[in-house]
Amino acid sequence: MKDVRIIEVKRSVFASNEERADLLRQELKKKGIFLLNLMSSPGSGKTTTLVRTIEALKNTCRIGVMEADIDSDVDARTIAEQGVLSIQLHTGGMCHLDAEMTRQGLQELEKENSGQTGPVDLAILENVGNLVCPAEFDTGACKNTMILSVPEGDDKPLKYPLMFSVCDVVLINKIDVLPYFDFDMERCIQNIHKRNPQAKVIPICARTGEGVDDFAAWLTDEMRAWKEEEKSHA
Amino acid sequence: MKDVRIIEVKRSVFASNEERADLLRQELKKKGIFLLNLMSSPGSGKTTTLVRTIEALKNTCRIGVMEADIDSDVDARTIAEQGVLSIQLHTGGMCHLDAEMTRQGLQELEKENSGQTGPVDLAILENVGNLVCPAEFDTGACKNTMILSVPEGDDKPLKYPLMFSVCDVVLINKIDVLPYFDFDMERCIQNIHKRNPQAKVIPICARTGEGVDDFAAWLTDEMRAWKEEEKSHA
Repeated sequence: MKDVRIIEVKRSVFASNEERADLLRQELKKKGIFLLNLMSSPGSGKTTTLVRTIEALKNTCRIGVMEADIDSDVDARTIAEQGVLSIQLHTGGMCHLDAEMTRQGLQELEKENSGQTGPVDLAILENVGNLVCPAEFDTGACKNTMILSVPEGDDKPLKYPLMFSVCDVVLINKIDVLPYFDFDMERCIQNIHKRNPQAKVIPICARTGEGVDDFAAWLTDEMRAWKEEEKSHA
Repeated sequence: MKDVRIIEVKRSVFASNEERADLLRQELKKKGIFLLNLMSSPGSGKTTTLVRTIEALKNTCRIGVMEADIDSDVDARTIAEQGVLSIQLHTGGMCHLDAEMTRQGLQELEKENSGQTGPVDLAILENVGNLVCPAEFDTGACKNTMILSVPEGDDKPLKYPLMFSVCDVVLINKIDVLPYFDFDMERCIQNIHKRNPQAKVIPICARTGEGVDDFAAWLTDEMRAWKEEEKSHA
């Protein structure tokens, strides 16, 4: 199995995380890198969804993945097997990533990428599995995506309001097991829109790949818009 | 539906949470109250498991439940419908409970119980749905229990090591959906025991009630041991 680099990320020295996050977004825009922050509970299927998304996009753009984890490097190895750049960020027990930790990760991803023709087009941050803390810290990402899986229940937007408020896209994963759970898709979408009327909701099954193309299409559109915005400012 | 009291809990003024937690355990021992801390990811089935546990124990002991949540009071209402004492603790967005917040909750539970013949025998704290932060803070509980549900995956003990290390009992919930998930019970138990060789593992299905009697039996034994320990010190 391919070796992956493990980075120990540290807290920011900036007074304000918001300030650091805005600065990071400006830097990313200049470099033409689109940063996606992917969040969810433990076991909702972040890594499997990433593998499918990479399959859908790896022939059209250069992808780099940062896998945040408290202790293991299982996920970064899984991603490295897809043939894309992958590093593991260790948070030292911390429950979230902030903008400075993300910047350190991007810097290491850049080193890993040295010798290539250019920077990645799409950097994906797989955040720590947690519906509470990651929502409170702007990582500097261009867009936020979260995964809610069917077994977790359709009431989660009511219980973890901030997470659903900060996300541009909510992927509802594991729709293949809908028959075995008391999960009402209509009610779930209503609950999401109560928290965030603008949120785009995409039902998927990462295991089979169902619905992942819709997510990849959204991501492609957003990446294009991000690069065009930069050109019009240049 | 019965109204439930909502308590806004605040951070501790104590220098050390460990110190506050030990003091709380001494106070509980004097009063003969057994405090159980119940933790899990969002959507693992904490409230449903509680409802089943209450059904199994409510004729043999007096129970009080503290439901911690960031924002809603859905769970406290569900518990109140079981005819046991129930209060809702709002953490104001915080991702865990510490010993001082728990003490405030117990105090309110005591007020709620005023006019009754004695204190509760069993106080249960349903912690915030999160596998990271609650593991870092001793709440002052006599024992810690966590729920891992089948859809979350058998690898979770490797990824959230601290949570599995601090728990006396791990309930593996939603075993009715085992046929639909790639979840190996043997491997899961091995992973748990890698982190915590002493942990007791009980497979359950909170929806149907399967296995809950085993958990109730463990709880009854622990409550008896706790009370006897106090008597032998008195």
